[in-house]
Formats: sequence, structure tokens, C-alpha cells
Amino acid sequence: MKCVLLNGKPGSEISILDRGLQYGDGLFETMRVHHQSIPLWKYHWDRLQHGCERLKIPLPDEQLLSQEIQQCISATDHAVLKLILTRGIGQRGYVIPDRCEVSRIFLLGEIPAYPEQFQKKGVRIHSCKTPLGINPVLAGIKHLNRLEQILARSEWQGNEYQEGLMCDTNGFVIEGTMSNIFWFYNGTLYTPDLTACGVAGVMREIVIQLAKEQSISIKMGLWSTKELLKAEEIFISNSLIGIWPVSYILNRTFPVGPVTQQLQSTLQAKYAI
Amino acid sequence: MKCVLLNGKPGSEISILDRGLQYGDGLFETMRVHHQSIPLWKYHWDRLQHGCERLKIPLPDEQLLSQEIQQCISATDHAVLKLILTRGIGQRGYVIPDRCEVSRIFLLGEIPAYPEQFQKKGVRIHSCKTPLGINPVLAGIKHLNRLEQILARSEWQGNEYQEGLMCDTNGFVIEGTMSNIFWFYNGTLYTPDLTACGVAGVMREIVIQLAKEQSISIKMGLWSTKELLKAEEIFISNSLIGIWPVSYILNRTFPVGPVTQQLQSTLQAKYAI
Repeated sequence: MKCVLLNGKPGSEISILDRGLQYGDGLFETMRVHHQSIPLWKYHWDRLQHGCERLKIPLPDEQLLSQEIQQCISATDHAVLKLILTRGIGQRGYVIPDRCEVSRIFLLGEIPAYPEQFQKKGVRIHSCKTPLGINPVLAGIKHLNRLEQILARSEWQGNEYQEGLMCDTNGFVIEGTMSNIFWFYNGTLYTPDLTACGVAGVMREIVIQLAKEQSISIKMGLWSTKELLKAEEIFISNSLIGIWPVSYILNRTFPVGPVTQQLQSTLQAKYAI
Repeated sequence: MKCVLLNGKPGSEISILDRGLQYGDGLFETMRVHHQSIPLWKYHWDRLQHGCERLKIPLPDEQLLSQEIQQCISATDHAVLKLILTRGIGQRGYVIPDRCEVSRIFLLGEIPAYPEQFQKKGVRIHSCKTPLGINPVLAGIKHLNRLEQILARSEWQGNEYQEGLMCDTNGFVIEGTMSNIFWFYNGTLYTPDLTACGVAGVMREIVIQLAKEQSISIKMGLWSTKELLKAEEIFISNSLIGIWPVSYILNRTFPVGPVTQQLQSTLQAKYAI
């Protein structure tokens, strides 16, 4: 991955006074590039708007961002484009400067070469001990404060597991370190409520929408791992992987079920993921 | 404030791939410089060691850091030296790279010109609505994930308040946005327990030590604001301000009491703060 555009110019370094570095004061989007465009841009842009509003970061102009995105991916068929927005340069102290010049950072990299079987046969999930703190003022936002995910991801090495399950400090299932989680049980699709904790993924949003379109009953709430284990099917989602069935979690194996497969097919047809 | 030393060389910009920017993956110390030295270095170093261990960041050599500090402050009588350590450059994803080259960043700035009356007559404290999330794996560490403090600090403008009080999501008193809090009631000094939430300040450590030396009974635990308001005296502390009495909090006024004054005098005599 390398930085391709920083505030509209080529560049690979940023001021040490940038509040993104000083305090993790910003947010990001990880976007899949497909044939010189970003199929899910509408969703990423919605989340950016929402995140900027919640964090009181001035929202950059959408047209400007779109132009910069075009500049980054005009010769790119398949890639990952990461956009970081920070509150820009500041002096010492948490107080938000009167004038923020938001930093716009674009990084381009290759789509990870995941084996096809992850999508077809499923992935194995480690159960993380690192909990997610509960805080409604930060919940849902894809902000730059990611130490919880880093510590959770450091709990396993090697290829035995492809993702880690994280619960909140009360023990309720929330998400993967880099994905959201869904499970199907007795005619209903379940996914954790993220109003107090977690990152509301763009792909989660799309899966919820697809489920509604297909008249699959969907429930959001807080459930323990014990409830999760009742599932007939489990899958995880994010905007790079689309949907991966879960074949193993918490000492239990799970089949790749029909609801998961159906959602995967629709996703493929609609967004080529 | 400006960057004076980056990995041993002059520099003011850092790679965009640095995980400090990407994820807030690092920690920092804000240190008072007094006559070409850092009187509280021992405490800052202790906390750095502890923080690096908790975050699995390789600890830089103390001698190297000391040399770099000397390089930064050899001509400085009074200043603030901020040291940021990050996990260094990484690629996309939360997984910790096999080889981390920790980034060492030193920034030098002026000590804020606080009016003398803050120390003598006390400060007014805003009650923040922004809560602190509870997470034992991050509690106590002065890490770079500071969005909670930024949102809390954004709740008030102007000079009416000098600090904001933050509670955890259960409503227990934890700390100020940039300071720790103590109060004295019925012969005992109280300060919040920070094993699940908050930043364990270097000055907090020193105040606890001074209290013990002076045989002041001290209790750490979790208390509501209602309990805090029983206080005869309240003060806040950090390594730049030392101790500031609290004159106003939660619609109540408080006197500058004898315990606060005694601790202030000892601090002045021992560390010239």
C-alpha cells in the first residue's frame, strides 16, 4: 500500500502535528476498486458524512473527493483504496482548533489474495479475549482509534484462523476485528446492534438491505455467544471480502447454509463481490 | 509546538504508513522541562515501559531516549517536551508487523501561560456529557486513542471553565480531560481507581506517593458525582500544572483547603512545580 494523494498532491509524508497522529483524531474508509470505479462509494460517502458529523470534523466537498478518487484510480482495475480524513494540523491539547484544515489522504494497494475457499467453504474464527469498550459517542464510527482491534488481532498468529470474534465488556457478541457478523436461526437473520459499541460496516448495511429486499426477517440486538451458537448458519462481512461463511467458531463447526449462499449470490450479481 | 527530533534526526513529517496515524497505534508522554532536565523523567519512563508492555510495542533503549532528550532540551530552561512512540510503519490491516521499527518523535513547545490564580484560587470544572468507555486492556495507558477526550473537551468554549470532569459509562467519576482528580473528605484523600478506565497520570502517581509519605489516608475506588460532592476539598493534577484546587464543580463551590495547599507546597519544594 502506498500513499498516492495527500490534500490533492502527490506525497507520502504528513506533518507530525497532524491530529490524526497526535490523537487518532479522524476516520477512514477502506474501499474496493473495480474497473476504475468504487461500486460502494454511495455507502462509504454516507458513512463519512455521518462520521464527520459525529466527530465534529468539517466534511470535505463530495465533488472534490470524487475528483481525487478518479485521479487515484483512473488506471486501476482492481485495488483497495483507503481514504483517511483527519482533523488536520493542531497544537498541543485536545481542544479543537478554530480553523481545521481537514487532511485528505488516499492510499492505494492490492486486494489481498484470499483463497477462494474462504468464500466457498468458510473461515475459522478465533474467540478474542480483548473486549470492546462500550461508548455510544464513538459507536458505529470507523474512526482512527483502533487499539482494541490491534490487541484483539494480536491474539493469534499463523493461518489457523482468518478472523477474531470480539464481544463487548458485558460479554455480548459485537463483531469481528475487521468484519461484522450475522447468523441465521429459526427463520431469522441476527446481527448485533451497534449503537453502543462496534463499527457499522458498509457491507453490513448492504447485507441488511438485501435481507429486507428478500423478505428475510432480520433482528438487531445484543446476544451472548451462547445465543450465537444456536445458529444454523453464521457469516461475516466487510467491503473487501463481501460475505464469508463461518465454518468454525467457539469449538463448534457450521455448514455453509442456504441463506448465506443466497446473499452471496445476490451480492455477486449486484456488486460483483 | 514543533517537532525537533524524529528517529534521531531533525524532521517534521512522518510516513503516512506510520501506524500512529493509521490506527492511533502508540503512546505519548507530556513532560515538563526545567533547567535542561526533566525532573519527572523517572516516572515518565516507568509509564512508557508499562505502556509498551501492555500494547506489545518494543521498548526503545532508555539510554537512547535519554540522549535524544538531552539533544532536544540542552538549551532549554522551561518548556514542554512531548514524546510520541508509535509502532512504526506498517501495511494495511490490524495485524502487528513481524518487525516493528518503533517511531520516536520529540516535540518541543512553550509551557502554557496559565494565570497564577489557577494554582492559588482554583479552577472551574465543566461536567462533560461525553463518557469514558470501560476497557481494562487499555485502562491507565497514555495511548494515542484520544477521541473521547477530544469530544469531551469540545463541550465547552471560552474561559469559563479550565477543565472538564469525565465519568465512565456507568456514571462513576474517573478523571478530567487532561488531568486526574482527587478529593478530601472526613480525613481521607480519594481518587478514582483506573484499572478499567482512564489515564494514570504521572502527577497522580506522585500525589499518591506524597500523601503516603505524609501519612494522609488514601482510598482508590469508584464513586458517583454525589459522593464527590461530599468533599471538603477537591483538586486536579497533571505533570504540567502540578496541582490546581477546584473552586467550582457541579453547581457547587469549594474552598482551597489545607490538604491541597500542603500537597502543593511539598510538590513545589520537591519538584519545583
